[in-house]
Amino acid sequence: MIAEGIVVMRMIKWENGLVLTPDQTLLPLEEVTLKLCSVEQMAEAIKTLRVRGAPLLGAAAAFGVALSAYYSKAQTLSELLSDLEEAGTTIKMQRPTAVNLFWATDRVLNMARAYKGDVEGLRAAVILEAKQIADEDAAQNYAIGKNGAVLINDGDTILTHCNAGELATVEYGTALGVIRAAWGQGKKIKVLADETRPLLQGARLTTYELQRDGIPVTLITDNMAGYVMSKGLINKVIVGADRIVQDAVFNKIGTYSLAVLAHEHNIPFYVAAPKSTFDLTCKAENVTIEERKPCEVTHVGCQQTAPNGVNVMNPAFDATPLKYVTGIITETGIYTKDHFQKFNKTFPL
Amino acid sequence: MIAEGIVVMRMIKWENGLVLTPDQTLLPLEEVTLKLCSVEQMAEAIKTLRVRGAPLLGAAAAFGVALSAYYSKAQTLSELLSDLEEAGTTIKMQRPTAVNLFWATDRVLNMARAYKGDVEGLRAAVILEAKQIADEDAAQNYAIGKNGAVLINDGDTILTHCNAGELATVEYGTALGVIRAAWGQGKKIKVLADETRPLLQGARLTTYELQRDGIPVTLITDNMAGYVMSKGLINKVIVGADRIVQDAVFNKIGTYSLAVLAHEHNIPFYVAAPKSTFDLTCKAENVTIEERKPCEVTHVGCQQTAPNGVNVMNPAFDATPLKYVTGIITETGIYTKDHFQKFNKTFPL
Repeated sequence: MIAEGIVVMRMIKWENGLVLTPDQTLLPLEEVTLKLCSVEQMAEAIKTLRVRGAPLLGAAAAFGVALSAYYSKAQTLSELLSDLEEAGTTIKMQRPTAVNLFWATDRVLNMARAYKGDVEGLRAAVILEAKQIADEDAAQNYAIGKNGAVLINDGDTILTHCNAGELATVEYGTALGVIRAAWGQGKKIKVLADETRPLLQGARLTTYELQRDGIPVTLITDNMAGYVMSKGLINKVIVGADRIVQDAVFNKIGTYSLAVLAHEHNIPFYVAAPKSTFDLTCKAENVTIEERKPCEVTHVGCQQTAPNGVNVMNPAFDATPLKYVTGIITETGIYTKDHFQKFNKTFPL
Repeated sequence: MIAEGIVVMRMIKWENGLVLTPDQTLLPLEEVTLKLCSVEQMAEAIKTLRVRGAPLLGAAAAFGVALSAYYSKAQTLSELLSDLEEAGTTIKMQRPTAVNLFWATDRVLNMARAYKGDVEGLRAAVILEAKQIADEDAAQNYAIGKNGAVLINDGDTILTHCNAGELATVEYGTALGVIRAAWGQGKKIKVLADETRPLLQGARLTTYELQRDGIPVTLITDNMAGYVMSKGLINKVIVGADRIVQDAVFNKIGTYSLAVLAHEHNIPFYVAAPKSTFDLTCKAENVTIEERKPCEVTHVGCQQTAPNGVNVMNPAFDATPLKYVTGIITETGIYTKDHFQKFNKTFPL
């Protein structure tokens, strides 16, 4: 089902006590594979965005706990469980917004807490659970792609923000999974990629993935979105999500602006995300938006772009109220505005 | 009338056959004064944005023609006029959107064409006309500031885009002139500055000016505008303009997105510009939007941010339809939406 030219890559792998994943801060200029061998290394990679993207963070969190299991010197089940709990705490404190970090960690820990067997058995079970989480994510993205592709028409130009591609997931991508699936069906689509300041995931990662797959992509700065919409150049917007709550979609800063602009121009605005990104226990007001370091705004790489000491805001995410969202594309189907009214009661998690 | 702490700086000066102006591509990290001594040097400075900002471009264009007058080897009035015409053509071809480049050049040339006298007299008259254009711009900005300040309330937080400050003008600024005037009246205001990709005039220049004057300023990336509005952090948006036509305001790319966002959040959106920026002979559809080099999007300074060879759009400006504009602050008063209906017939140019 994968179209010709589209390269399938596994973004995170377990190999004999090492977790292999690309260092996304160096792309596209350098392709370096990280070989992580401790939960501390995984935590650093998550904090610094060497590993990023909500679905990939789920797998990374699970593999972080798996690294702790693999290298723990625990002799008893309770000692091992204590190490795993500590690893889980370390992982979860790295970033506050993407829910995947939390549920994946909790899924592994809950399995471990309920485990009946010996220490070596638990080590193996934890590693297996992490691999399972990764495999499930990959499968979900193909399903998201297939479900979303029906929304895409031949000739569409699709605007996307940040990177919701294979680099944000274990394989294939969410928003870019939909684009890959439509492309695979022979639809001649084009993509416009917002560069996505401050960390430029659109410029660095989305263009890199699509260019490699031969899908036409044009890079714009974030502030060009209104312009290209006003010129009639955009047929759809598709983005990923870091957390979907009862009343809003949390995604990379700038998503909300895009959604308002799409609304003003009557352009459908879709979110593509696995259900693991849903957190229907809370509302937007309950979610902490991560505030990152000022230097991400005042510098691009080694290039300083603002005066010394200037005051900066750097929220990593924003909340898009559901009224601006045309539909959420998941592995089990597309949920439209009508469903949102009933989210709490009927959303089939 | 200038508030304490606010430094008055003349951004372009004529000194014995040299035009002195800061190299704005190097700010804020380096403060270098260009000493231009030919129309070709002025043309290069305009093309590369070493000199930028619609009102300042008017004065720069006039001084470019003045340099030609000063150094021309013409022996007759008609020879000198021919050199001036050539200089005017050179200046006007550098950038297509800001109307100030055209009217200022034409004003000097029209004066020269009508001049009765000898060669030396015309040289002096051209230089004087350029100085006059610069002086008028400075005076207009103080008037814009005074007129606009009445719109600003104590405690307001004002969002601005790009740089419509002293660095965009001969002195004081347009949008930042309004802010300086309000600050001078003792209003405790704060400014949020969009960084303004691709060339970061907000990050580099607006923060630099305001920081120096002690006016509180916070830098954000362009894509945070919707977020800060949704949080209720913005009371007004004030921007400059590169050309105001019958049905739209042309300004730095991203202005249109801001205006739509302000509209959605019921935040007043003001444009501050001298009447020299008006070009009521045409509509938005008649204006050429400058498309600049891809490397401005794929690089920040020496830092490459996207894969080699990626396709790029780089429009330098966009058009904001007047329906999104709450008012235009000029040196003779504030023109509100009601006036726009009658622009063609009644706008007092």
